[in-house]
Formats: sequence, structure tokens, C-alpha cells
Amino acid sequence: MQDIYQHIEDHIDEHIATLFRLVSQPSISAQRLGFDKAPALVKDIFESVGMNTDIVPVPNDGLPSVYGTAQGERTDRTLLLYTHYDVQPVDPLDLWKSDPFKPERRGDRLYGRGMSDDKGNIIARIAAIRAFNEVRGGLPCNLKFFAEGEEESGSINLPDLIEQRGQDFAADACIWEGGGRDTNNDPFMYLGLKGVLTVEVSIKRLSVDAHSSLATVLPSAAWRLLDALQTIKGDGDRVLIDGFYDDVTPLSDTEEAAIAALPDETEELRQIYGVRDFVNEVSGDALIRKKYLTPTANIAGLTSGYQGAGFKTVLPASASAKMDFRLVPEMRPNDIFNKLRRHLDRHGFSDIELTLIGGVNPYRTSMDAPWVKLVAETAEEIYGRKPVMTPNMAGTGPMYDFGKTIGMPIATSGIDHPAHNIHAPNENITIDDFLLGAKQAALIIQRFAERGAK
Amino acid sequence: MQDIYQHIEDHIDEHIATLFRLVSQPSISAQRLGFDKAPALVKDIFESVGMNTDIVPVPNDGLPSVYGTAQGERTDRTLLLYTHYDVQPVDPLDLWKSDPFKPERRGDRLYGRGMSDDKGNIIARIAAIRAFNEVRGGLPCNLKFFAEGEEESGSINLPDLIEQRGQDFAADACIWEGGGRDTNNDPFMYLGLKGVLTVEVSIKRLSVDAHSSLATVLPSAAWRLLDALQTIKGDGDRVLIDGFYDDVTPLSDTEEAAIAALPDETEELRQIYGVRDFVNEVSGDALIRKKYLTPTANIAGLTSGYQGAGFKTVLPASASAKMDFRLVPEMRPNDIFNKLRRHLDRHGFSDIELTLIGGVNPYRTSMDAPWVKLVAETAEEIYGRKPVMTPNMAGTGPMYDFGKTIGMPIATSGIDHPAHNIHAPNENITIDDFLLGAKQAALIIQRFAERGAK
Repeated sequence: MQDIYQHIEDHIDEHIATLFRLVSQPSISAQRLGFDKAPALVKDIFESVGMNTDIVPVPNDGLPSVYGTAQGERTDRTLLLYTHYDVQPVDPLDLWKSDPFKPERRGDRLYGRGMSDDKGNIIARIAAIRAFNEVRGGLPCNLKFFAEGEEESGSINLPDLIEQRGQDFAADACIWEGGGRDTNNDPFMYLGLKGVLTVEVSIKRLSVDAHSSLATVLPSAAWRLLDALQTIKGDGDRVLIDGFYDDVTPLSDTEEAAIAALPDETEELRQIYGVRDFVNEVSGDALIRKKYLTPTANIAGLTSGYQGAGFKTVLPASASAKMDFRLVPEMRPNDIFNKLRRHLDRHGFSDIELTLIGGVNPYRTSMDAPWVKLVAETAEEIYGRKPVMTPNMAGTGPMYDFGKTIGMPIATSGIDHPAHNIHAPNENITIDDFLLGAKQAALIIQRFAERGAK
Repeated sequence: MQDIYQHIEDHIDEHIATLFRLVSQPSISAQRLGFDKAPALVKDIFESVGMNTDIVPVPNDGLPSVYGTAQGERTDRTLLLYTHYDVQPVDPLDLWKSDPFKPERRGDRLYGRGMSDDKGNIIARIAAIRAFNEVRGGLPCNLKFFAEGEEESGSINLPDLIEQRGQDFAADACIWEGGGRDTNNDPFMYLGLKGVLTVEVSIKRLSVDAHSSLATVLPSAAWRLLDALQTIKGDGDRVLIDGFYDDVTPLSDTEEAAIAALPDETEELRQIYGVRDFVNEVSGDALIRKKYLTPTANIAGLTSGYQGAGFKTVLPASASAKMDFRLVPEMRPNDIFNKLRRHLDRHGFSDIELTLIGGVNPYRTSMDAPWVKLVAETAEEIYGRKPVMTPNMAGTGPMYDFGKTIGMPIATSGIDHPAHNIHAPNENITIDDFLLGAKQAALIIQRFAERGAK
């Protein structure tokens, strides 16, 4: 594989240029921003490495996916690469040291929104495909490359797309986004993802904002929202929604062993986020178990009244919170949504409006699948160490739709690192992250062509 | 006075044009917006009616006041007119039917930010002065016209200005802003104002926003803020800060009688604000007493995390609330600020940051002052009915600094009406409001010149 690796290294400046071109193009799914141009740009990049590419319309007026296919030497073996080309919003903008959509290299690091998640992964894989084309005259197996446009908005329309034409995306195995290195620079793989339920909790109590001198008698939306939210969380970070934990399933022995083997993340998290005390003062093993195995009730946004400089003496007519609930197997977003509605009603908050924004099912793949072993071996070969394996990541993605609905074994590899500030200001990668990710993508394609996924 | 009234009516189109010119110029003190031009425009308008006018620097880099003086026939009698030329912020902008700074006449109503509060009052008084100049060749007494630039931001630097040069503004009597008509179209006067304490309550728990999948272990600023805020208010709208109500003074018998005579506001408030249930389900007399005689703990703004369209799965690093506490005599803002700090510390929230934004002392003038009777008589003459008198308004202003620190009797007259949406979208006045307010201003000047304030 040295010929392939060498090609990737020799062309690193071109790969960075392509990555910068992709990062320069905004594609914020939450705000539907940049989708007049972003899909065509992804298509253009896919076609530049010879893939037959379509912009795939997504049901319910969803933002399109981009889907490329390429035939390789082993036409009986097809590998699916899953990525997404949409990114998270960029606020708070004032904390960025450079424009999120004007990618910038500072030393060994490349900065910009999506640089890691997930445009860096897309281009690392493109670099691998290009190397096969230019060094070997083509791919060793069939490839399908799926780049979703709504992953950062909870892949809300993906289940419908999969229902319509999931068999088009069928493959023998799948490489997901988001593998890479952990806080100790060990390679890591995850075999599942949490689900998520995203909602807006809101209330309007006046037809118009009032002067705050009327707060004596006019009802306050802000206080009412706070009262309602307070009923959701109890001591010890416990979620108080009736039946919230009902469908949480215990780990298998293999999974328990994998969790027990995970490295301590306490100090790294403390450093990255400047944390004094973790939730429930967890650290070490307890932190790992809490991070990977428990669901959450998070406030992602709070809005009411005047938020600018100085002061406005206003009694706000309305108040709202954006909440996300991370779900572990086998919780289901619709079920939790219904339980939350019942919870609010039961506590006297029928006046609180609850709007479903999105839902993704949690998913775990078997730790014993041959495909998982194959990918683990490539990680060891590239990084020189056995990968750390996680039954599921703390994050979310539509693995369920591919792994369960279409049906294929899924493992991960990628360019990730906890220092990348994904979803946050100053998202970045190192050039080394990119090179290692691209090389492992190439090696996986090669090994899969040789051995298949069974 | 018919000659004066006729002049005001004959020139109404010009007065509206001047008012539109003033409303067109933004002057949002909370955002320090428009103050490169607004003071000069006010000065220009003051000078247009012959006042000797200065832009008055305000201590602590405060936004300037504009101060005009004019000599009249009775040089031994000086009347001070208090107004302010700054306005409240305009958000939520999407609820305005026209641009807040592009004043618009729709039928009999004039719309724009500051149209009522307080630019309408300024121009109504200018109309009265102009009428004296043009009909009678000058004013019947000396005038001082004070237009503050920071009233809507809690007049935070006015006490320092008054300390420095309060005697410059000394007068025999003062007309405040903000009188007018009530929900029954009866004239009303108020003889005092509540005080206010404005603060920012905030917390930062992470050095940077995190991906919300880490909400399992990283501390949440939003939940922490909510926990802290929840300790401030109890059942029945009771403020739970220790000693909060200690300095609330009972009303005198005259004041009690005045409060008992106030008209019911229940239905009007219900209609204007589309309210189903008032705080504590008050109505009628209980609503009046709660509105005018109790302090508040209001949330004027709540901010954390992502507030845009769609969703961003973020664990926000920080969260904050803007709160204002309306104070009744003899509560003091600094005292309440210290009590709030102690309250948070005592409840284990020493990590919550508390920032003093501004404070104004509450103030009530005696209901038996001859000046109050003189102004009440002018109200009866103009509106044809005895004015409704309130010991204090629900709102706030720096009356204490003029009435107590400099020392002069203060009464009110103006163009106000509860339907004006002051501090809210679609602020407006009717042309009739303006004409009546201007005529009463003229009549007060005339009667004061004849009788003085004693």
C-alpha cells in the first residue's frame, strides 16, 4: 500500500485546496443556508474522482443528499461510505478567530466550519479514491459514497428516503463517519450511536411584549417556562419524565468489557472545556459510563425578551427553549416525545407548547461481526496500536437506517480527534489527522476488496 | 387661552412633521445607538422655539442630556419641564407593522418608536412654547427644559449629574413626563414613580460551547441558571430574597383614598395584552393594588445557546438572564442588589455572577402640595373632568433626583394612553392625544406664571 500512501502524501496540498473549497461553501442545514450551491459542489468533487454522481432529492422538501457510485475490479463486493456535507451553525461567531467559511491554515492546523465534521472526512476518502485511480488505474471493489445534507439537523427525512429507495444504497458493508483518534491519540472505533429527540418547548402568554412595570399583574412567559423546565430534571441529573428510562437495555458482556477498557477522558475533557466539576462529580470509569451509556435532557437554547447590550425593561410575551434528549438503545424518540407531553400535562403545564423538531433512533452493531474485525485490523496497521472500541458513541447519526432498515454491518474510521472543537467555534483538524484518515480509508477499501465483509 | 389653543391646532401638520423628524432619528440608549446625531437634533428643535440650548455632558461617559432655557415675562417664576429623548430598543422587529424609525400615519394614529414615550411629549411641549412665542410674543414665565438621554436605561448617571450641577436645573416647580389619559379616557396624574434595580444574572461553566452529546458529563450553564432563578420567586408571586419587603412603607390615608378611587383596569389590560389569567388571578381593586403598590422580580431577557431556526445540538458554555426589580418607597436598589447577592450565596449559587446594571430610587410627592392642585385644575379644564390621581405610577423615572435631591414639587401632564404600546412594537399616539397634551402644557405654563407653585 506504500504506493497509495505516497500518492496521498505527495498530493496533500491539492487535497487541502479541495477541502478548503468545500469548507468555503456554507451548508448549514439548520438554517437551510448555502444549499443552492453546496450539493453541486459536492457532486463536482465526487465526479472529479470518476464517480457517477447524482444529487438525490429528499422527501418532505428535505435538503438533498449527494450520491456517487464507482465500479471496481471486484464487482461482486460493494462498500458504502457514509458521510454528510452539511454543517452546524457557526454562532457564537465572535468566538471564532477566523471566518468559519474562510478556511485558514495556522501552523499545522486547518480551521473552518466542517473542517473535521464532516467535510474533512469526505475529502480524506476522496483522496484515497483518487490515489487508487491514479496509481492503480481504478478501485479494487465497487464503491457507493453517500453524503447526507441533513445530518446536523437530525437526519429528519432520512428514514423516509431509506423507505423509498433504501435498496439503491444497499452494500455488503459500510464505513461510517467519525472514527479517528481519542484523547490519548489511540485509534478508536465506535459500533453504534445514541439516538436523539429534539424539541422546542415554548409558551406565549401575552399578545405583545409589555412594559416590565406591568410584571406585577401580567403573567410572565419566562417564569412559566422556567417552572415547566424545572419539573424535567431532578437531583443527580435524573430525568423525571415518567417512564423515561423504561427501554434502556443493559450491555452485553462483550460491550461491558469494551466499556471497562476505555481510556480515562477526565483530564482531557477538563482541559478542553475548562471544567471544574463534572455532572454528579463523575470522573474516571464513572465518567465513561455516564458519557456513553446514559441518556440526557439538555437545554441547547433559551430565548426570551431582550438579549442585547444594556437593558430593556420589558415583560416578554413569550419564551422558549430548544431541548435535545440523547437516547440509548432501545429508547425511541416518538415515545419520549409523547412521555414528555404527558409529563407536562400531568404537572399542570398544558399551556406549554411542545414541538417535535426531529428524532433519530439509537443503534448498536454487534462487536463480533467479521467486518468490525477487518476494520479494527486496518486501524492497528495504520496507527500502530489496537483500536479502542466503543459499543456506541455519545453522539448521534442515522446508523439505524442503514444498519437496521437496509441491513449491513457498519464500522467506523475517520479523521476525528476530541480537540477538533466540532460543533463549536474554531473547528479544526491537523494535517496529520487528515493523512492518517485518508490512508486508513484506502487500506479498508483494499482489505474489503480482498476479503469481503463476512 | 383660545388664541394659544387655536395656534396649536392650526399648526398641527408642522408639529407632526417635527415629531416625525425626531422619531426618525434613532436614540436607543441601551444600545448607544444614534447618539452621534440625536442630541444635536433635539438642540436644533429647542433652538427653533428660541431656547438657549446646550448639549450637557453626563458623567461616567453617559449619554448627553439636552437642556434649554428661556426667559419669560415673570422672571421670578421658573418652571422645569422634564422629558427624555432616548427610546427603548425596537425588538422584536418582526412584530412592527412599519419601520419603527420611519414614522407612519395610519388613519388618526401616528406610529414609530418614541412616538409616545417620550418624543411625543417633547414636541407637544415645543408646540405650546411656539404658540406663546408666535401669538403672545414670548413666554409668560421662565422655562427650563431638560431632555435626558438615558431614561430608558435607568438614568444610571443622572444622580451623578445632579450632584455635580443640580442647582443649574433648580426651579420653583416641575412638570414630569408621562401624564395623559387612562383606559377610561379620564385625565390622570401621578405623583410618584417606582424605583428599579436592573441586573444581569449569568454563569459560564465551560470555556467553549460543547457538542450536546457531552451533556451527560459536562456541566450545563442553562440548567444551573434556571436552578438559581427558581430560588428567587415563590408561590403567589412572592419574592423570596431575604428582607426584600423590609422597607416597603404603608400608604398615607390620602394615598389610600386615591388608590381606592382608581378605575378598574382589568378589562383594558386583558384586551391590550390578550391575557387569560393575571398574576395571582387578581382583578379589580386587587389588580390596582398589586400593580401600583408591590415590587416585582421580572425576567426581561433569557439567553443561552442556539436560538436560530432549526436546531443546533449544543451544550451552551454560558447562560444569562436580565432581571429588573421594580421598587416601591422606600426600597433602595443598592440594598436589594446586596440582598440578592447574599440570597444567591446562601442558596449555594456563589458561582452565579451578578452584575449591577442600574438603579433608581422610588419617589412619591405629597398629594397636598399647591402645585399638584394647580396642575389638577388645568387637567380638569382641558379634559372636562377631574383627573384620576395615583400616589405613584407602576413605572420608573428619576423623579427622586429632581424632587428630593434638588428639591421641587413635581406633577405630571402629557399625551399618554395605555393603548400606546410604549416599549413594545407599534408604539403610537393619536393626533387628539397630542393636541390635548400640548394645550394642557400651555395652560400649565400660563397658570404657573399667574399663581406660582406655592
